[in-house]
Amino acid sequence: MTKTKILSILKKSKKYVSGEDLAKKAEVSRTAVWKHIEALKRGGYRIEAKPKVGYRLIETPDILSPFEIGSGLKSKILGCKIFCFKEVTSTQEIAKKLAVQDCVEGTVVVAEKQTRGRGRIGREWVSPLGGVWLSIVLRPNLPPQYAQRITLTTSVAVAKTVRRLYGLNAKIKWPNDVLVDGYKVCGVLVEASGEADRINYMVVGVGVNLNVDFSMVKPNLSKTATSISQILGRKVSRVEFIREFLFEMEKAYITLTKNRFNQILAEWRKLSETLGCRVKVISQKEVFTGEALDVDEDGYLLVRLKDGTVKRVVSGDVSIRKE
Amino acid sequence: MTKTKILSILKKSKKYVSGEDLAKKAEVSRTAVWKHIEALKRGGYRIEAKPKVGYRLIETPDILSPFEIGSGLKSKILGCKIFCFKEVTSTQEIAKKLAVQDCVEGTVVVAEKQTRGRGRIGREWVSPLGGVWLSIVLRPNLPPQYAQRITLTTSVAVAKTVRRLYGLNAKIKWPNDVLVDGYKVCGVLVEASGEADRINYMVVGVGVNLNVDFSMVKPNLSKTATSISQILGRKVSRVEFIREFLFEMEKAYITLTKNRFNQILAEWRKLSETLGCRVKVISQKEVFTGEALDVDEDGYLLVRLKDGTVKRVVSGDVSIRKE
Repeated sequence: MTKTKILSILKKSKKYVSGEDLAKKAEVSRTAVWKHIEALKRGGYRIEAKPKVGYRLIETPDILSPFEIGSGLKSKILGCKIFCFKEVTSTQEIAKKLAVQDCVEGTVVVAEKQTRGRGRIGREWVSPLGGVWLSIVLRPNLPPQYAQRITLTTSVAVAKTVRRLYGLNAKIKWPNDVLVDGYKVCGVLVEASGEADRINYMVVGVGVNLNVDFSMVKPNLSKTATSISQILGRKVSRVEFIREFLFEMEKAYITLTKNRFNQILAEWRKLSETLGCRVKVISQKEVFTGEALDVDEDGYLLVRLKDGTVKRVVSGDVSIRKE
Repeated sequence: MTKTKILSILKKSKKYVSGEDLAKKAEVSRTAVWKHIEALKRGGYRIEAKPKVGYRLIETPDILSPFEIGSGLKSKILGCKIFCFKEVTSTQEIAKKLAVQDCVEGTVVVAEKQTRGRGRIGREWVSPLGGVWLSIVLRPNLPPQYAQRITLTTSVAVAKTVRRLYGLNAKIKWPNDVLVDGYKVCGVLVEASGEADRINYMVVGVGVNLNVDFSMVKPNLSKTATSISQILGRKVSRVEFIREFLFEMEKAYITLTKNRFNQILAEWRKLSETLGCRVKVISQKEVFTGEALDVDEDGYLLVRLKDGTVKRVVSGDVSIRKE
C-alpha cells in the first residue's frame, strides 16, 4: 500500500522529505503523494508540509493498525500477523475462527472495542474504546493441561509490562487477574482446543483497562476495577503497550515451551498478590477459607485450611480477605 | 413427516394395517398413503401389500436415518438429536461446528462415508461405505484433563458393544484402539475445547470397521486392520450397532461424570490388550521398551523399564512386542 509506504519513509526520516523523493520512492505521482498525505492527516497523523522543502512527521497518533503495531515490534513470532478491527463481538471469537482456518502461530487480533467481551466462565468483560482488547493464537507442542500454565505465564508478562512502562506496582491475583493497588487492570483468558494429549491451538486473550474511565461506562465496576489512565492521570499509548507486551509475552512463552515453567513460577510468586494471604475460595463444589500457601508446578493454587490440610484449587473464584 | 409417521405405524403393528387406517392416523388421503409406501419401498423397506387387507412391514433396511437410529434407542442423552449424512469430510468436523453453535449435549453426527476421516494426531482414517463413522457432542462439567479418561471410557463402551452383539473377544490397546485377534476394528478420537479449568465442549469420535472390506479399499490396511463383517463372514446392522453403542456409552459416561472413573478403569483393565505385555513406546521425545504395568487414575500408561524405573506415558504410539 502506497500510504503505508509513504508513512514508513516519513517515520524513518527525522528530517523533511521532499515531495519529489516521496513520489520516487513510493513510485507514484506527486499529486498522489499529496493525496495520501492529506489522508494520513485526516487519520490523525500530524505532518508538517514546508513549501519547497517537503514533509515531516511530527506526531503519530495512537492508532491500532498492523502497520503502527508492527513497526518497532521486537517479538519475532507473536504479531507476525496482526488483524485490527474497529469493533468486534470479541477478539477471542475472531482468533478462534482464524485458528480453525489454520492461521499461523503468533497471529494477533486487536480491536478498538468489543461488544461481547468475555472473561472466565463466560462472564461479561466490559470493553469500551481506550482499552487493549487482544487475542493471540498459539500452537504449542504441549499437552492440553498446560492451559493453566499459559494463564500464569500471560499474567506475568502483563504485570511486567505494566511495571516497566508505567512504574506501577502491578500484582497478580490467582489465577488470571493483574491488579494495581488491589484494583483490577487486566484479565487473562486462555482457551485451548485439542486432543487428549496435544493442543491443536490455544487462544490467549488479554483485556487491559488502559485508557478507560469506568465512571463514564459502568460506574459499578469502579468498586473493583480501575485503569492505567485513571491511576496515572493521563492517557498512555495502546500501540506502545501492545508492542511491549507482545515482546514480554514472547520471551515468557519461549521459556515455557523450553520446559522452564519453574522460572515463570518464580517470577509469578514474586508478583503474586494472593500468596501468604487469607483467601476465600468459591468453587462449584464447595466454599472454604484458608491461607494461600503456594502454586504447584501445574499452576494450581495450594490453600492450607485451619485444620492443616492443604487443598489444591483447580478452578473457582478466590478472593483475598483483609485481616 | 408423513412418511415417518406411516413407517412408525407399520413398525408398531406386527399385523396388516389397512390403507384406510393408515390414512386416518397419518391424516392424509389414501392416494398419499400409497405414494409414501412406494417411496419407502424404493428406500429399501420391504412392505407387503395384500389387497383388501392392507400393508405389513416385512423387513427394515440398514438405513442411517435419525428415525431408524432413534426408534428403539435406549439412551436418553446420547442421540437426543441425530444428524445423518451420506458423505461428509469428517463427522468430527461437523460435530465441532454444531458444538460451537451451542447444540445440545448428546447430539450425534453419523455419516455413510467420510472423505477426510481422521484418527489421532491428524492421521488418515479410511472411512468407506459400510462402517460406522460417528461423533458425539458432550458437555461434561469436568476439567479439560478428563479428555484422556473419556478416551478410555469410550473404548470400553465400544469393546463391550462388540462383545455383546457379536460374541467377539474384543480387546483394547492403549490408548484408543479396539482390536479383535490383534487387528484393529475401531478407533476413538476425543477432542476437547475449553478454558484452563473447564471444558466448553468435547467431541467423541468413533470409527468402527463394521461392514468394510479393506482388500477392496486399501489392501495395505489388512495387515493391521480388519472388520466385523470379515471376521463373522456376514454383514451386520449398522443401526443396531449405533443404538447399542450409544446406550453402552451413555451408561459409561454417567459413571464417569459421577466421579466413578475407577469403575471404568476396572473394566478397562479387564479388556486391556496392552497390560502385562512388553511394549515399545514411541513418543515425541524418546523411544523405549518396557513392560506395560498399569494405567493410572488419569488414564495414562505406566511402563516399567529394564532398570525398574516406571515411566508415565502421556502420549505417543505404543506397540505390543511379541515375545
